[in-house]
Amino acid sequence: MSDANYDSYREDVVGRANVTDTPERVAYYKRLAELGTGALWTVANKIEPWEPASTSQPMLWRYNDLREDVLRALDLVTPEEAGRRVVYLENPGRSDVVAAVGWLYSGLQVMKPGECASSHRHSASALRFIMEGSGAFTNVDGQKLTLGANDFVLTPNGTWHEHGVAEDGSICIWQDGLDIPLMNALDANFYEVHPELNQAVNYPVDASVATWANAGLRPWGSTWDKRYSPLLKYEWAPTYEALQSYGRVTDGSPFDGVLMEYVNPDTGGPVMSTIGAHMQMLRPGERTKAHRQTGSFVYQCCKGKGWSIINGQRFDWQERDIFVIPSWMYHEHANASDTEDACLFAFHDLPVMRSLGLYREEALGENDGHQPIIT
Amino acid sequence: MSDANYDSYREDVVGRANVTDTPERVAYYKRLAELGTGALWTVANKIEPWEPASTSQPMLWRYNDLREDVLRALDLVTPEEAGRRVVYLENPGRSDVVAAVGWLYSGLQVMKPGECASSHRHSASALRFIMEGSGAFTNVDGQKLTLGANDFVLTPNGTWHEHGVAEDGSICIWQDGLDIPLMNALDANFYEVHPELNQAVNYPVDASVATWANAGLRPWGSTWDKRYSPLLKYEWAPTYEALQSYGRVTDGSPFDGVLMEYVNPDTGGPVMSTIGAHMQMLRPGERTKAHRQTGSFVYQCCKGKGWSIINGQRFDWQERDIFVIPSWMYHEHANASDTEDACLFAFHDLPVMRSLGLYREEALGENDGHQPIIT
Amino acid sequence: MSDANYDSYREDVVGRANVTDTPERVAYYKRLAELGTGALWTVANKIEPWEPASTSQPMLWRYNDLREDVLRALDLVTPEEAGRRVVYLENPGRSDVVAAVGWLYSGLQVMKPGECASSHRHSASALRFIMEGSGAFTNVDGQKLTLGANDFVLTPNGTWHEHGVAEDGSICIWQDGLDIPLMNALDANFYEVHPELNQAVNYPVDASVATWANAGLRPWGSTWDKRYSPLLKYEWAPTYEALQSYGRVTDGSPFDGVLMEYVNPDTGGPVMSTIGAHMQMLRPGERTKAHRQTGSFVYQCCKGKGWSIINGQRFDWQERDIFVIPSWMYHEHANASDTEDACLFAFHDLPVMRSLGLYREEALGENDGHQPIIT
Amino acid sequence: MSDANYDSYREDVVGRANVTDTPERVAYYKRLAELGTGALWTVANKIEPWEPASTSQPMLWRYNDLREDVLRALDLVTPEEAGRRVVYLENPGRSDVVAAVGWLYSGLQVMKPGECASSHRHSASALRFIMEGSGAFTNVDGQKLTLGANDFVLTPNGTWHEHGVAEDGSICIWQDGLDIPLMNALDANFYEVHPELNQAVNYPVDASVATWANAGLRPWGSTWDKRYSPLLKYEWAPTYEALQSYGRVTDGSPFDGVLMEYVNPDTGGPVMSTIGAHMQMLRPGERTKAHRQTGSFVYQCCKGKGWSIINGQRFDWQERDIFVIPSWMYHEHANASDTEDACLFAFHDLPVMRSLGLYREEALGENDGHQPIIT
Repeated sequence: MSDANYDSYREDVVGRANVTDTPERVAYYKRLAELGTGALWTVANKIEPWEPASTSQPMLWRYNDLREDVLRALDLVTPEEAGRRVVYLENPGRSDVVAAVGWLYSGLQVMKPGECASSHRHSASALRFIMEGSGAFTNVDGQKLTLGANDFVLTPNGTWHEHGVAEDGSICIWQDGLDIPLMNALDANFYEVHPELNQAVNYPVDASVATWANAGLRPWGSTWDKRYSPLLKYEWAPTYEALQSYGRVTDGSPFDGVLMEYVNPDTGGPVMSTIGAHMQMLRPGERTKAHRQTGSFVYQCCKGKGWSIINGQRFDWQERDIFVIPSWMYHEHANASDTEDACLFAFHDLPVMRSLGLYREEALGENDGHQPIIT
Repeated sequence: MSDANYDSYREDVVGRANVTDTPERVAYYKRLAELGTGALWTVANKIEPWEPASTSQPMLWRYNDLREDVLRALDLVTPEEAGRRVVYLENPGRSDVVAAVGWLYSGLQVMKPGECASSHRHSASALRFIMEGSGAFTNVDGQKLTLGANDFVLTPNGTWHEHGVAEDGSICIWQDGLDIPLMNALDANFYEVHPELNQAVNYPVDASVATWANAGLRPWGSTWDKRYSPLLKYEWAPTYEALQSYGRVTDGSPFDGVLMEYVNPDTGGPVMSTIGAHMQMLRPGERTKAHRQTGSFVYQCCKGKGWSIINGQRFDWQERDIFVIPSWMYHEHANASDTEDACLFAFHDLPVMRSLGLYREEALGENDGHQPIIT
Repeated sequence: MSDANYDSYREDVVGRANVTDTPERVAYYKRLAELGTGALWTVANKIEPWEPASTSQPMLWRYNDLREDVLRALDLVTPEEAGRRVVYLENPGRSDVVAAVGWLYSGLQVMKPGECASSHRHSASALRFIMEGSGAFTNVDGQKLTLGANDFVLTPNGTWHEHGVAEDGSICIWQDGLDIPLMNALDANFYEVHPELNQAVNYPVDASVATWANAGLRPWGSTWDKRYSPLLKYEWAPTYEALQSYGRVTDGSPFDGVLMEYVNPDTGGPVMSTIGAHMQMLRPGERTKAHRQTGSFVYQCCKGKGWSIINGQRFDWQERDIFVIPSWMYHEHANASDTEDACLFAFHDLPVMRSLGLYREEALGENDGHQPIIT
Repeated sequence: MSDANYDSYREDVVGRANVTDTPERVAYYKRLAELGTGALWTVANKIEPWEPASTSQPMLWRYNDLREDVLRALDLVTPEEAGRRVVYLENPGRSDVVAAVGWLYSGLQVMKPGECASSHRHSASALRFIMEGSGAFTNVDGQKLTLGANDFVLTPNGTWHEHGVAEDGSICIWQDGLDIPLMNALDANFYEVHPELNQAVNYPVDASVATWANAGLRPWGSTWDKRYSPLLKYEWAPTYEALQSYGRVTDGSPFDGVLMEYVNPDTGGPVMSTIGAHMQMLRPGERTKAHRQTGSFVYQCCKGKGWSIINGQRFDWQERDIFVIPSWMYHEHANASDTEDACLFAFHDLPVMRSLGLYREEALGENDGHQPIIT
């Protein structure tokens, strides 16, 4: 802290720190600094804001802008050199922690047919959402999961995992989502390379789906005791069908349209301890109202087109575009089509907020719930 | 207790009561009886058996034997007179509590097109499993659920419910399952008739299914806080499909083949607090091994034919036959066909046993796990 | 059921069964009986009462009446013969299941200095409450617990346990409480004699108390995972002190005065899965109001004197008297002294009722909450 | 990131990123940066370390060094100006977030007799540990708690709270502990000043202690449903007694001696959702072994003297000294006296680590569990 300016956070409000610098006080502050200490009242108003003020910025990355450069990675580095060929998304307010928003990392990964990365595991929870290509697969703790567009797959914290594309597949691109920044922030990030580089596959392909993707039914005698979902892949077709089905009997959320959370079928809870995910459908012509939540969101449009207004800024999106909503910023969504629905995938850190008792949400009261656009 | 015989439960085992009657002791026992008391050692071995010895008997009711008599009820009483036209199943060892086995009640209910019973609610948890007919429906707390053969529907404790058959349906028969005997045994049974006799239906038909029967997905913002499943109907088609799907990736249980529990999708737990249910598939030619469990089961064959050996007795069953397995009796199952699978629906009181920490199971060790038949 | 009388439970209320016997119907009922079935409407009103109607009776056993006869057991049988010398309390409405009330067993056990019973374990949960004598001890799973008057000790289901009195002690009498009847009713009762008759003691004496009886503190790294309390003994002195302390800051319950539940310090839940217990203090001159609860209670007065009105009957009690309150019967309590407090210990089956979602309570609305006395 | 140096995190290990800079690649990286993106392999090894590498430093603040300067605050600012007169502890590796270690804030607060701060509430969880003086009190949600040396008091997140010192008290100093930095990091920090500046006190003084500080007993009918402990104050005398008591029956932890966690008596869980606390006793002459944990600790010595070795550095402490242990750094403790015990209070973020499934610990294997001292 600069010597000259210990009173820059003063607020003239009863109950808040409001201490002017005097020579005697400044001398005292310098003395405290020598002791590895400081006077709380010089920083209290800064570290105790009236409400959250995220350093993350709302952002949108257009897939059309990125796709060519993602594909170029195929030629620039080998998987052996790079580990994984990924272009990560960098929020200007979070570049120090390599986050797309809050403590969430995201990137676009690309692989060629016949490639398979080496296996590893880490404290970070990870997911991927398939954007294009055929033949992609992920192996998780001895089980192979086959992947198509808009499929959502988990590689939970602590599981051995590796990705690949079948010889007869095509170039694949998917979105990675992880909480690497949070694991680092919490000083809890461990990383291991698989001792044999590639794990053995010793379950039937997609066994997790056959076993757990049966609504209202569970295998007798299951002794699942992990903190993440035993259902590791959520396929697009039944997900879209569920949105249609639920949409027929609900008015939907005023803020989000028809929104369903991906859940752990063993508990009804979030898919992983630190990352949750959802799929939402905006019906033809739907315009939602604004609310704000404690929690950070990374969105991908996976069907249709529309726009979102985040903290007063409008972001137009179409299929495969990615955008982020920082914590406690108002946001509302619109489907640009009057005839087709639009679907948005998102992952977020609400499981963290809820586990710690910090989740809060608030509707925008003024202007019929719509934000004025900042131009 | 007869005077003459206070020492009839003696066991000559260290740590067990082994007190012979003497004139002095008998006089003492009579004196205690006058005080509203007794000597524990005269009954200790009786009330502390080495292992459970159920008074329930294994039983099978053939649908062919019962069907005509069930239909006769249509002519003998009106719904207004009878409340419900039901033929209940009576276990000879449990006739004092009107139970089919243990503390579980079961009966066959019949209704004609155009009929609708009056609405009521009670402490007992209830379910039905549709046996034949079209057009049946159940209303539960303001929601209409439409029912077809092999559909499984809940009317949980405390919910207003009523049953009927549409004007354009056919005569319907279904199996009722309740824990009325348990509620009475626990002195906890309350009963109410709906003040308006029939409740208003104010949700879309089958809304519960549209909302909750989506594997791995749940509606955002649900605040379900009941102790029973928000999914009130489990339809046959997806249930059978799930058995097929899971059957492709599992060896199945040695005791039960491919068995899936019906669960509450909000929690992964049992469908109701005091009654659970499952569907199991015996693959062509499958013969399972014997085990025993603390808990009572009411089975209905809903596809195929075969037999079960319960406590050494063989019971042959085919579609719509009902049989019961008392607590802690060995049981094993066989599919009689080498080409078709056989499916068995069951409901049971395992949620009670598990809630109270009393569930236990044991495989039969001898004879390769198969019981000798008692003839 | 007697042939002549199938319509004895008729009720002339819409929604209830109201079917008169006719020759045709009676013939039908006989036909059903041959098939191991019955017509629900002949018993529906009986098995679905409007509210619980316990077969248990309110009862009080005076210690002065019982004490001499309990002591006589010392001369009449040896511990080796009897297993345990216990005079059990028999409710006239529950003599078939040897219960004091509902599904709860209770008895008075007596031992001489230098005696020690053999060790056993069972599915029933057990407790004891010390009435008189010095030097008593209980060993539970390798730990010795020393016992004095009004101490409350657990021997939870599945634990090896044995009781004794030290050589330098005096004759001891304590109250046993178990749920043997419930375990039998649920067909879940197992019993084992310790293979070595007496277990080794391999923990410090009263280690459980030293480790767990520290308010708001728990031992680091405890991996307790049993469903019963790791604190096995609740001593009288701190219990009475707690009542005093809490009494200074609470108005108390209008129905029970100052009432504290004994709890599992690891979870805050009941001491065992199927039996709970509490200690309550009626302040000088206190008269409580009546309420009723689903659940059965066995009380012992351990300090002072007073009376309770149960279902309109007055029961006067003093130190060491035992009385029972059946489920869903109104009850209210009075301290007969205007200068001394009175303390009542009780154990009950509320953990069962709560685990199964069946707990309900209701205050008496009329007459300022006081029952008229039935004379 | 500086242009010149995209390959500074390379590791020559299979499965890790190992990509050298080439002109073509550097051009690519610059292109990506323009798109708000980056190449993962340039930072992967940095953001996915092999194990946690905290930026926090082990630190010790001597009370003798700080006390005079803390007292000087009394003259330099009024409570009205400062809000609270607090000297906070600043970890050189965490000065940007004003943390003493990890995401934990700590400071020393001083108040004069007759002063009382204004009331506020915030998302941060807070505690205080009394260091010296008499007459201190804290009001929490309408309840006054009186405080003496070594008492530990909670002001949980969301509760209105204010501190003061009675007119007839003396100057008081206590340690504050909060998770302000974590709340800011998670973008979840809200702050409110009480609308009437000081809240009404409408419970008996110390009611929480009278009601909840009774081992193994809880008030009947409590409907506590907060995520923090209903016991708001943990007094020193019973805490020290508990350590003595537990110490008589345990060998203690090889790493921590006799350690007891402060817990929520309603659940057995941590006192607050995001901050836990413990008191530990090192017996005369005790030298513990080293282990490391994911989680950050702030210690205060409250009795005796000794030293701790943290990450190879020795820190000598005596009564009232404060020191911190960063996440995943080895630490071991020693009591310097062979005749007196030493007691250490600590608060930490283990509830966060456990809620998120991130807690891990590891013993030092080499050198009989003792770290070599780095000099």
